[in-house]
Amino acid sequence: MSYTAPLRDFAFLLDHVVGFDRVAATERFADATPETVNAILTEAARMCQDVLAPLQRAGDTHPARLENGVVRTSPGFAEGYRAIAEGGWVGMSADPEYGGMGLPMTLTTAVNEMMSAACMALQLNTLLTQGQIEALEHHASDEIKALYLPKLISGEWCGTMNLTEPQAGSDVGALRTRAEPDGQGTYRITGQKIYITWADNDFTANTCHLVLARLPDAAEGTKGISLFLVPKFLPAKDGGAGRPNEVRVVSLEHKLGLHGSPTAVMSYEGATGWLIGKPHGGMAAMFTMMNNARLGVGTQGVGAAEGAYQLALGYAIDRRQGKAPGTGSIAEHADVRRMLLAMRAETYAARAIALSCAVAIDMAAATGDPVWRARAAFLTPIAKAHGTDVGVDVTREGIQVHGGMGIIEETGAAQFSRDVRVTTIYEGTNGIQAMDLVARKMMDGGEAAFRLLDDVAAEAEKARNGMGDLAQAVWDAQEALRETTEWLVAQHDMQDRFAGAVPYLRAFGRVLGAAAHLRSARKAPDSPRRILAAFYIERLLPEHAGLLAQARVGADGLYDIGLDDMAAA
Amino acid sequence: MSYTAPLRDFAFLLDHVVGFDRVAATERFADATPETVNAILTEAARMCQDVLAPLQRAGDTHPARLENGVVRTSPGFAEGYRAIAEGGWVGMSADPEYGGMGLPMTLTTAVNEMMSAACMALQLNTLLTQGQIEALEHHASDEIKALYLPKLISGEWCGTMNLTEPQAGSDVGALRTRAEPDGQGTYRITGQKIYITWADNDFTANTCHLVLARLPDAAEGTKGISLFLVPKFLPAKDGGAGRPNEVRVVSLEHKLGLHGSPTAVMSYEGATGWLIGKPHGGMAAMFTMMNNARLGVGTQGVGAAEGAYQLALGYAIDRRQGKAPGTGSIAEHADVRRMLLAMRAETYAARAIALSCAVAIDMAAATGDPVWRARAAFLTPIAKAHGTDVGVDVTREGIQVHGGMGIIEETGAAQFSRDVRVTTIYEGTNGIQAMDLVARKMMDGGEAAFRLLDDVAAEAEKARNGMGDLAQAVWDAQEALRETTEWLVAQHDMQDRFAGAVPYLRAFGRVLGAAAHLRSARKAPDSPRRILAAFYIERLLPEHAGLLAQARVGADGLYDIGLDDMAAA
Repeated sequence: MSYTAPLRDFAFLLDHVVGFDRVAATERFADATPETVNAILTEAARMCQDVLAPLQRAGDTHPARLENGVVRTSPGFAEGYRAIAEGGWVGMSADPEYGGMGLPMTLTTAVNEMMSAACMALQLNTLLTQGQIEALEHHASDEIKALYLPKLISGEWCGTMNLTEPQAGSDVGALRTRAEPDGQGTYRITGQKIYITWADNDFTANTCHLVLARLPDAAEGTKGISLFLVPKFLPAKDGGAGRPNEVRVVSLEHKLGLHGSPTAVMSYEGATGWLIGKPHGGMAAMFTMMNNARLGVGTQGVGAAEGAYQLALGYAIDRRQGKAPGTGSIAEHADVRRMLLAMRAETYAARAIALSCAVAIDMAAATGDPVWRARAAFLTPIAKAHGTDVGVDVTREGIQVHGGMGIIEETGAAQFSRDVRVTTIYEGTNGIQAMDLVARKMMDGGEAAFRLLDDVAAEAEKARNGMGDLAQAVWDAQEALRETTEWLVAQHDMQDRFAGAVPYLRAFGRVLGAAAHLRSARKAPDSPRRILAAFYIERLLPEHAGLLAQARVGADGLYDIGLDDMAAA
Repeated sequence: MSYTAPLRDFAFLLDHVVGFDRVAATERFADATPETVNAILTEAARMCQDVLAPLQRAGDTHPARLENGVVRTSPGFAEGYRAIAEGGWVGMSADPEYGGMGLPMTLTTAVNEMMSAACMALQLNTLLTQGQIEALEHHASDEIKALYLPKLISGEWCGTMNLTEPQAGSDVGALRTRAEPDGQGTYRITGQKIYITWADNDFTANTCHLVLARLPDAAEGTKGISLFLVPKFLPAKDGGAGRPNEVRVVSLEHKLGLHGSPTAVMSYEGATGWLIGKPHGGMAAMFTMMNNARLGVGTQGVGAAEGAYQLALGYAIDRRQGKAPGTGSIAEHADVRRMLLAMRAETYAARAIALSCAVAIDMAAATGDPVWRARAAFLTPIAKAHGTDVGVDVTREGIQVHGGMGIIEETGAAQFSRDVRVTTIYEGTNGIQAMDLVARKMMDGGEAAFRLLDDVAAEAEKARNGMGDLAQAVWDAQEALRETTEWLVAQHDMQDRFAGAVPYLRAFGRVLGAAAHLRSARKAPDSPRRILAAFYIERLLPEHAGLLAQARVGADGLYDIGLDDMAAA
């Protein structure tokens, strides 16, 4: 699989669209000078293009497998991982005190997108370690930090998240794994966890599991959950990997996609674990890890979309067929153009939203300003769900552009579609993201939402001069979204909010995407970015009206058909 | 995989929604009495549930394979095929003179939906034979008919379509396979064909290929294409399968889905073939075959959607998770309800559209009325593209309802999504269907479209009494669609029609779906059908506005970005 990193897009978005200049102007991120940013992205692009992209097909055709309890990874993945670790890409936003580069999350987001486009199955390993690093930075003791962070940041060790159990998926509070104090300051962890991504590998010296479990005196539900660090090998006196812990990979799943990423059932049989954070404080620590990972997963969607777009564009340009105008390639057919431009415009909008979310995270971290914190919190579920919806939609269209070749596995189009499919599900399904958006993220009475819409309206006002029609369309759309937001905030029966949560989130993504395109067009009025903006605003933005109509129906009628009557038979 | 045939839906749609009574009132289909219809559907349902559904997973996990030039099919497929053949399901609409049942295409459509829901990979074999039977009925000589039709109709032999070559996909006119007269009234066929579905098997005594090829004096493009019947085994004197023809299966494709259905590269090396229809008249014969198959493929989309819906509903009812109201199953969460009801409402609408198309085909066949013929021609691309879009959308949502289980292959949700993916591509991509709709199918100045919209408007008028809001919404939508249809008909630059063809077709599907739901609600106002209709009209129909906006932008802007500038890099 060949891949060309979208460096021009990143540069343009950072310089002109998502407000990265404000991040670079903070004291905390003063090192993120234009030269550094350029050097970082160029270097990451080279690794993704030269080292990771060639691994993508091998990960699919030679899945990770379990041999006598040991996970054997796909051919080349060990070398690919080494390149990621040695480049410093695992810990690029981690604390410099422990070996990280301390760079803004905005840059990590760009690099993560490139890595996911090139080889998502392997990048997923890094994404999980990044989440673990952030959780430990915020919640672990100094001793744990000193021991684990340098090894995680360097990539010598890697990290996983162990939340789900057979009866506890979206409902984490139902988990049963037990943690008993052993009198030596550590705990014996016992239970079974499922869907554990990258539970093991054959290229890092240790794998560190963050495990949610219950202490003996724990309350029921989420209030009784604590977080434990459970390494595959217990640290030896010199700090290296020592004797094996009581942790076992039971089996690997047979999955639709991401075959290169082992997904395991894990068994903890009195394994030694260290408490992270306070007793019964596991949910807070988990949310640190998950929030980071949610933006990361949204970014995986963008990466898959970009990869699928490049593959489809290349195919369409090369493929000669029918009486096409111009070059005679199928890319000259109006309907193929429509598909390709939609793929491009959707991917660009999703990229802008992910980077905007990252900018808010960076600004919150650098300034502590609650307004930035609220914006980061509000944009995270949108970046996750919108980015992954775009990933699923665009990779699906990538198959369509290929015609019959699209379903032949060797082409690679189908793999993008299979690999990205899980992203709308893991780290909280997109339904959960939407419920989070209309409930928790609107506990401020909609303030974070309205501030974002104010920015969209301001952008539309600025764009009126020269792009009157496009600006008006964006202004109207933000106004419609504002009215629906007001309606949602006024609903006190949460079921009425939840019933329209998914279409509401999608409409928000549409409007933010349109605003990003409009701003791009205003900043580069004589470039193809203006054509792309017109495409998005004229053809894709109108979808928001249907989505908002759906968002405002409420729960009426959803419960009027009994489950027995829902079968067609 | 378990499956329950939607017999209640079929009965209701035939009796109250799609106008099947008019078909049954014709002389040609006088045998299709209510008792016969009921017996036929019940018997087919039993076979699909008991014999075919249990084969679905085996087809996926044990793909058809090529061993020393011979195709070995998936375990149980031979027995499944025998059940289809012995039940008479292959030739249920075929000419009774040759052993067919002469039943309406409407019933074949219902049976084909059930078979595709149960095991699409095997059903696809039957669908192709049905297309071949129809092509031979219309275009073959009496001698060929007498020899081949009884064996195809009984299922003793089966049929394939050989159109595509590496350089000739959607552009059939580019094909190069040659046919040279051998002086004995037959022809020597030489060339390579690709994507040949069910090119061979190990359960029928013969496989008959309909092959498009060029005679020596052929013109370029589609005008120089002729159709040939090329059996795997040449007929012996007794009419049975005799010595092997010069036809070879070169290789099988490694596909995203439909693993149980072998897709081959075929080599014809001076194979003996019989001309079907007139020299250079291959396109007409092919369109007979394709038109039949297009409705059939749309129906596959409906079947996959129904199968995926049943699987998701069953899972959601069984799965207990979180603080759901009522029974505590995830089916009680508002967002899961929304997904399930959308799956159900979409599938029902697509089923209604497919059956309406079949009714038009039957009425055209029974009456010869050009108005019915035009309606059948207009509805065919909609039934194909809308049905398969629904198939892809609903199976995707089926994965989502399953959460993490959705991407575990053993669950079966992912298989529905993989299997149905090709249906938006084969038998003419959905882009080709949409172009056909806005060009060829509007050469009547939009008359067929406006007649359909008149029917929708009339239905809305009838429903005003008692369902005012729903009726108004449907009336408004048909009015918006009518205006866009007028706009399209007025565009003489076809690129302006083609640029919005796909969203236009989708909007048409939405409006026809809404009309079918409205009619259902009017006919059964106190049933869950009314709730379902409200769901569709309030939540899904509003999408039509965004689609129509997109349909009316025209080709403006599509060609303003050079292919070089379309890359993001």
